Amino acid sequence: MTSNSRVLLASRPTGSPSLNDFSFDSPPCPSPGLGQVLLRVVYLSLDPYLRGRMGSSVSHASSSPPVPLGTVMQGGTVAAVVESRSSELAEGDLVLSASGWQEYAVADARQVRRIDPDRAPISTALGVLGMPGLTAYGGLTQIGRPQPGEVLVVAAATGTVGATVGQLARHRGARVVGIAGGKAKVSWLEDAGFDEAIDHRAPDFEDRLAAATPNGIDIYFENVGGRVWSAVEHRLNRYARVPVSGVASAYNSDEASTGDIAALMSGLVTRSITLKGFVFTDFEAVRPEFEKEVSTAIRNDQLVYHEEVAAGLEQAPAAFLAMLEGRHLGKQLVQVAPDPTASS
Amino acid sequence: MTSNSRVLLASRPTGSPSLNDFSFDSPPCPSPGLGQVLLRVVYLSLDPYLRGRMGSSVSHASSSPPVPLGTVMQGGTVAAVVESRSSELAEGDLVLSASGWQEYAVADARQVRRIDPDRAPISTALGVLGMPGLTAYGGLTQIGRPQPGEVLVVAAATGTVGATVGQLARHRGARVVGIAGGKAKVSWLEDAGFDEAIDHRAPDFEDRLAAATPNGIDIYFENVGGRVWSAVEHRLNRYARVPVSGVASAYNSDEASTGDIAALMSGLVTRSITLKGFVFTDFEAVRPEFEKEVSTAIRNDQLVYHEEVAAGLEQAPAAFLAMLEGRHLGKQLVQVAPDPTASS
Repeated sequence: MTSNSRVLLASRPTGSPSLNDFSFDSPPCPSPGLGQVLLRVVYLSLDPYLRGRMGSSVSHASSSPPVPLGTVMQGGTVAAVVESRSSELAEGDLVLSASGWQEYAVADARQVRRIDPDRAPISTALGVLGMPGLTAYGGLTQIGRPQPGEVLVVAAATGTVGATVGQLARHRGARVVGIAGGKAKVSWLEDAGFDEAIDHRAPDFEDRLAAATPNGIDIYFENVGGRVWSAVEHRLNRYARVPVSGVASAYNSDEASTGDIAALMSGLVTRSITLKGFVFTDFEAVRPEFEKEVSTAIRNDQLVYHEEVAAGLEQAPAAFLAMLEGRHLGKQLVQVAPDPTASS
Repeated sequence: MTSNSRVLLASRPTGSPSLNDFSFDSPPCPSPGLGQVLLRVVYLSLDPYLRGRMGSSVSHASSSPPVPLGTVMQGGTVAAVVESRSSELAEGDLVLSASGWQEYAVADARQVRRIDPDRAPISTALGVLGMPGLTAYGGLTQIGRPQPGEVLVVAAATGTVGATVGQLARHRGARVVGIAGGKAKVSWLEDAGFDEAIDHRAPDFEDRLAAATPNGIDIYFENVGGRVWSAVEHRLNRYARVPVSGVASAYNSDEASTGDIAALMSGLVTRSITLKGFVFTDFEAVRPEFEKEVSTAIRNDQLVYHEEVAAGLEQAPAAFLAMLEGRHLGKQLVQVAPDPTASS
């Protein structure tokens, strides 16, 4: 009988997680019931929101209950159907599932979404064509609504969300300023066509941002908070829009990020600024147009994305910790099994 | 030659203003030039935003430059034309003007707005049919967008903005919770038809708010900030809307109101909340429908408002200080000259 390698949550971290917060086991592989499929995980997605799911120290950073201790770490996955007891899926089908940090998983056929491998590489279902892509597309087109000539700023700009926001905004005629940490990321942004790329680690970061946005900022796609928000806040123009998709700077910190709430509110009033939080599920209605626009742009080489792929499930904890520290560029994946669509 | 009594800004207050920050003089009455009118002020409006115009200590509370020292305090006024050198206005016409704290003023005919005394009492042009009314109407209908059965909370609820927001929301089928300070104000809210009225001075204010909103809050019309915002913030429902028209609690304070910005942002994300600042000028497009709906409601006794009228320009500083402390109920006016439309 095949065994199933798994990564479990062993303890709830205080502050930054460590390798000791994870443990491994390998029970027997589960069997699908009627209407279910057995999946073999191909790619596992590592995302900042998972820090919130680890629980305890970042209570406000996640809307979902934490992963119970001793159970499999959660996470989005691309998987192959290896056994089907559903008429809706056949062996060999590729699906998007929430199978977590393990080699095999059982899922209801109706709880997974089939992936068309001809549309784009299947790993993109976890990135630019998946949750981060819809986060970017929905926040940009439904809240940010860039007009030609407007100035958009996005932080964590080499991440899947940030990179997609920036490129889609440029397609719409906006001038796009990307913020990222370190020379390699800044170079990547320049190669990806961003109008300006700024290193938030620079001592004169605030001055560089001011120089890059002499006429202020019309749209700030907020996904990091902290120092970047403080620098952006007073540069927002009248009628600026701030889609808020997350506060990554808070996911890994026990400290409250104190600030002047009254000044923030007064700034909203005097400049008629909109701050609108959202999650990608708010935008299911625009998923068809999102998938069409982004997959077309990928095929036409008008939208670039970067993936970093750790090899083997056993690397997942270390890759996750590195991702939280921002050491990766683009989308962080773990290759759990060979990609059946990859040309060898 | 007639003299013109005036109230000048004598010094910039630190913290709460005092009577010593104002001075009086009475130079000769000015004369209108071509295209201008000489106005006699009938009603002067006293509003919290004027604290910001006094300058120095509340730099973020106002978008306009402060009143220069030694010049007439600014303010909205209802005035009568006593001499006209414009074909657009005749002696006896009543207008809305920004003539400030003085008996007489010259204005360009095109910079004032004629008031129809048959529509409603002329003082309402400074209140429920004026800037505060449009603030309420625009913020409520264009941002808050109450649906039948939704729960709306508004603070400073006996003020013109709050009282108008609450009543217009009830007309639209919302359940309305008003917050005010002191028993007299709470009673007024109950008489005005608010579903619930809560005294923010009560030691168990937070508990009372929770009891009054067992299913959370869908719309919070933000005009005070501070303790009320802190109590409301975590009760906001998914897809809640927060029109932000001001932060009155900050106008009179030198202290920053510190809070956890990351928690605020995360709350926006996990509950898809919209925070949208605005000023009444954003809503000029809906002014005709605003004036029609509100004046009709007044004539049909479906919308109540309260005015407190101090008698005589010399009372303006004291009435202003009392208003900043929240001692008035409703709209604070100063009667500078007899109302020519009042039945005697």
